[in-house]
Amino acid sequence: MRPSDRRDHLRSALVEAAERAIAAHGLAGLKARDLAQEVGCAVGAIYTVFPDLDALVLAVNVRTLALIEAAVAATPRPAGRGEGAAEDLVRLSLSYLDFAAGNGPRWRALFEHRMAGGAPPPDWYLAEQVRLFRYIEEPLRALRPDLDSAGTMLLARSVFSATHGMVSLGLDEKLMSLPREVLRAQLETLVGALARGLLMPREDAGSPPVIPGPGSGARDP
Amino acid sequence: MRPSDRRDHLRSALVEAAERAIAAHGLAGLKARDLAQEVGCAVGAIYTVFPDLDALVLAVNVRTLALIEAAVAATPRPAGRGEGAAEDLVRLSLSYLDFAAGNGPRWRALFEHRMAGGAPPPDWYLAEQVRLFRYIEEPLRALRPDLDSAGTMLLARSVFSATHGMVSLGLDEKLMSLPREVLRAQLETLVGALARGLLMPREDAGSPPVIPGPGSGARDP
Repeated sequence: MRPSDRRDHLRSALVEAAERAIAAHGLAGLKARDLAQEVGCAVGAIYTVFPDLDALVLAVNVRTLALIEAAVAATPRPAGRGEGAAEDLVRLSLSYLDFAAGNGPRWRALFEHRMAGGAPPPDWYLAEQVRLFRYIEEPLRALRPDLDSAGTMLLARSVFSATHGMVSLGLDEKLMSLPREVLRAQLETLVGALARGLLMPREDAGSPPVIPGPGSGARDP
Repeated sequence: MRPSDRRDHLRSALVEAAERAIAAHGLAGLKARDLAQEVGCAVGAIYTVFPDLDALVLAVNVRTLALIEAAVAATPRPAGRGEGAAEDLVRLSLSYLDFAAGNGPRWRALFEHRMAGGAPPPDWYLAEQVRLFRYIEEPLRALRPDLDSAGTMLLARSVFSATHGMVSLGLDEKLMSLPREVLRAQLETLVGALARGLLMPREDAGSPPVIPGPGSGARDP
């Protein structure tokens, strides 16, 4: 093997070992010594391919983001303005719940990981996070065509945060967990209500609420 | 001082010292040795008034819950069914944001604390948590008078979880923080939409959406 191939090989082996450790025991389960032992290298060799353990965690987290993307990408696309988009937001939230419930420790690692010294994550990592919000932006554009792209992105983030709050607290066995089916029904109720509420113009917009009926742009008064 | 007075005094001094430590540095800042030094007792004396440090953390957390209650109780009560209740849910979410932003470490301690050995928190503590949800239940009863008390309580928990998700991720400087004013505006948009959406009957209820106008039960078609 050429030195560069050997480095690539070591890098992959370390990411895979770190991924297994995080999936089994969460971030707290990640120890440089254990990783070195598992891939058969010296502890110091880790730092020839990663500047620090943070970089290794980010490499695992970006793979977790890709798994979430694969899970939500399987959710059908919105049919158009109205209930289709609302149903789509609900389906996205249920895919997210299923992923979180099935991949607890590595999902929690996305939110528990903090860069050493309080540094923000690098831009390439943030870009991967933002890419996932696109799946939420699509139905939101159907619900709120009046928003510009920055407004849609911000709203997608907020819808994600609200969904994440329900999933995160609802799955937390030490805090206030709910039976899975109850949590699914609550997501359907709340995310559905949120979507229908977004579709309605605000009272302060000065116009009466307009509710589009199935298959039509708006119901005539 | 009688022995029982001395115990009460030690207990109060320890809770206050623990509260200061958590408010300054979060749960990670709580060390039995530092507490003992601050109140001028032996480390072992802590365990004559608290069975373990968990019990001391719960004593602090229940005071934090009382502070949150004081903050949200200052939020005006709902005026009735319709926009009044929606505005009230928005105001409750903004009070929660203000409390969280102003009391970061002790607010986060409510969610970070885990009982030793993975035990659930004691019932008296859970009852204090549930009591806070009543503030959310009140406007929800106005929005969804069709729900029974268990359904309203569950929905209140979910509305709290969604709001908490937005506040928690929006204030997290290491993850995806938002400027405070942007976060306020997003809470107004999302919690407002959620409330308006809850007011509307579901499509699958088989009846057309009914939106109450200001001051009337429902707008005639």
